[in-house]
Amino acid sequence: MMVGDTILVMSRRATLSGLLAILLFLSLPALAQTGATDPLPSWNDTATKKAIVTFVERVTKDGSPDLVPSADRIATFDNDGTLWAEQPIYFQLAFALDRVKALAPMHPEWQDKEPFASLLKGDLKGALAGGEAAIFEIVTVTHSGMTTDEFEKIVRDWITTAKHPITGRLYSEMVYEPMLELLAYLRGNGFKTFIVSGGGIDFMRVFAGQVYGIPPEQIVGSSGKLNFELRDGRPILMKMPELNFNDDKTGKPVGIQMHIGRQPIAAFGNSDGDLQMLEWAEGGGGVRFALLVHHTDAEREWAYDRKSSIGHLDKALDAAQTEGWTVVDMKNDWKTIFPFGSK
Amino acid sequence: MMVGDTILVMSRRATLSGLLAILLFLSLPALAQTGATDPLPSWNDTATKKAIVTFVERVTKDGSPDLVPSADRIATFDNDGTLWAEQPIYFQLAFALDRVKALAPMHPEWQDKEPFASLLKGDLKGALAGGEAAIFEIVTVTHSGMTTDEFEKIVRDWITTAKHPITGRLYSEMVYEPMLELLAYLRGNGFKTFIVSGGGIDFMRVFAGQVYGIPPEQIVGSSGKLNFELRDGRPILMKMPELNFNDDKTGKPVGIQMHIGRQPIAAFGNSDGDLQMLEWAEGGGGVRFALLVHHTDAEREWAYDRKSSIGHLDKALDAAQTEGWTVVDMKNDWKTIFPFGSK
Repeated sequence: MMVGDTILVMSRRATLSGLLAILLFLSLPALAQTGATDPLPSWNDTATKKAIVTFVERVTKDGSPDLVPSADRIATFDNDGTLWAEQPIYFQLAFALDRVKALAPMHPEWQDKEPFASLLKGDLKGALAGGEAAIFEIVTVTHSGMTTDEFEKIVRDWITTAKHPITGRLYSEMVYEPMLELLAYLRGNGFKTFIVSGGGIDFMRVFAGQVYGIPPEQIVGSSGKLNFELRDGRPILMKMPELNFNDDKTGKPVGIQMHIGRQPIAAFGNSDGDLQMLEWAEGGGGVRFALLVHHTDAEREWAYDRKSSIGHLDKALDAAQTEGWTVVDMKNDWKTIFPFGSK
Repeated sequence: MMVGDTILVMSRRATLSGLLAILLFLSLPALAQTGATDPLPSWNDTATKKAIVTFVERVTKDGSPDLVPSADRIATFDNDGTLWAEQPIYFQLAFALDRVKALAPMHPEWQDKEPFASLLKGDLKGALAGGEAAIFEIVTVTHSGMTTDEFEKIVRDWITTAKHPITGRLYSEMVYEPMLELLAYLRGNGFKTFIVSGGGIDFMRVFAGQVYGIPPEQIVGSSGKLNFELRDGRPILMKMPELNFNDDKTGKPVGIQMHIGRQPIAAFGNSDGDLQMLEWAEGGGGVRFALLVHHTDAEREWAYDRKSSIGHLDKALDAAQTEGWTVVDMKNDWKTIFPFGSK
């Protein structure tokens, strides 16, 4: 048995060595092109990738006149459309709609009440015709009236089972491989990475650790009021049906100050909702980096900007031009889109 | 020159070796008593110290059935009366009073307007007779109407120059040496340490890094509203005269959820304002630790609890008894109070 195991281990090792040799041989041209330790293999060798690497080297290399102490290497990332996809609807809205359907049997009154009546008939457009008030009502019934623990469990169940309507993939798989590499690259260079998103703070925290390697305390997002109560002698936090903070547009620099307490030296977004966050990062003096993900790949992902209601990118795209911010041309700058490939 | 320097270095080395030998010899009994690497040398060897060490070993030692993954080792600390002193008045109130005096020449109307008129005559009691409304007014004029950057500079100037009225020490020196050791001990064991205080978040952030080794993003506190604006094209955050969040009592678990997103496994406080934070930490299930600093040393620090308006400790002291929380008896548990000795 002992001898057999040893042989098995040895032969497995031999096979692995052989495989490794083959892989090394095959990847030699790539290695020669990008360096043996390219931290951003899913990025094409364009000006965008160069801009990222140049910035990181300027602020981290020993002896650089622009060296930033590790403690101040704060990088903030929008989530929807920047770290994961946001089409055909924001994934958190998809979660809310699924919850409305799940809760409907307990709410017979919804059959005659908008926006629920339209929603339950499968008419999303009709449901959202009520504008922000309709969305607020949908968010309220699905994001409050339970404890933070209960909400976490509901989101966990959803994120591990619900499938994207077009790709059929888990929503947590619809993340951008180049951005995952960028997060790891920055952390490998002493950066602390934060999410600063209009999405719900308690929603994102459920999966951000596993998916992005970002712990709950480094998530900034929109939130509802919380109420501390004792239930049967046990402390709970109830999620209340009242907005606490809207972490969007001018709210993003405010959320950053509240949670992080200093200006990021790098910020990453994709829409007008990120404009003020990028301005705030750029405004801090010294070498700063601001980047917009521009959705230009209708085939592998989606193509949208100035005319889109989701991920509306108009003023921020103009600002990128005048301010000299880096703009990712998804189609040309990204070799890979999703870990599983593309849409 | 070269030879001379070498001799100097050598003789200095010889002297250092001799000193080291003497110091080692002198400290042998102490080493034998507490172990060569006692991480809490300012704590007497009482049940309190044992409770701390036992807890930390239970949740961190490999193979312990109560092992907590490093990512979940969250410890939250109140500030006033827990990490630094709070007598004869909260230090942030001392800051505000100093600011009122500094701003008075620009506000002639304050001469006839309470609470400022009394304050400027040196009558603190009269000024605070207006209760919470008076304090709110003092806090408002001293903590808003400027940018976050401007406020940071004002606090930095104050904290590096203002002296405590009784000890004559800088306020930043009035920190508890045993608690500094405890912070370092927890961090050395993979804990992430947070401040969760009723004090102002932007106030504490100015010195918490240097004094406690806690970065701005790990400070939770009370705050005013912020407004993002462009001033001459440059982005700023204005501190507005409106309360955003009161991080006290039931606000502490809420602040913890907002900023940290999970229940601490250890919480440290000293007053009824910390009761709910300790309940929240204890309520998470598994091995948890809750500690109250009881101010029992009138000679070396101050002695106060149930009847004090500052650091009022009444319900939480009862809860400690019924819940079995650890209570620091400052007089008997702490060998040293402040880094410079005692009051």
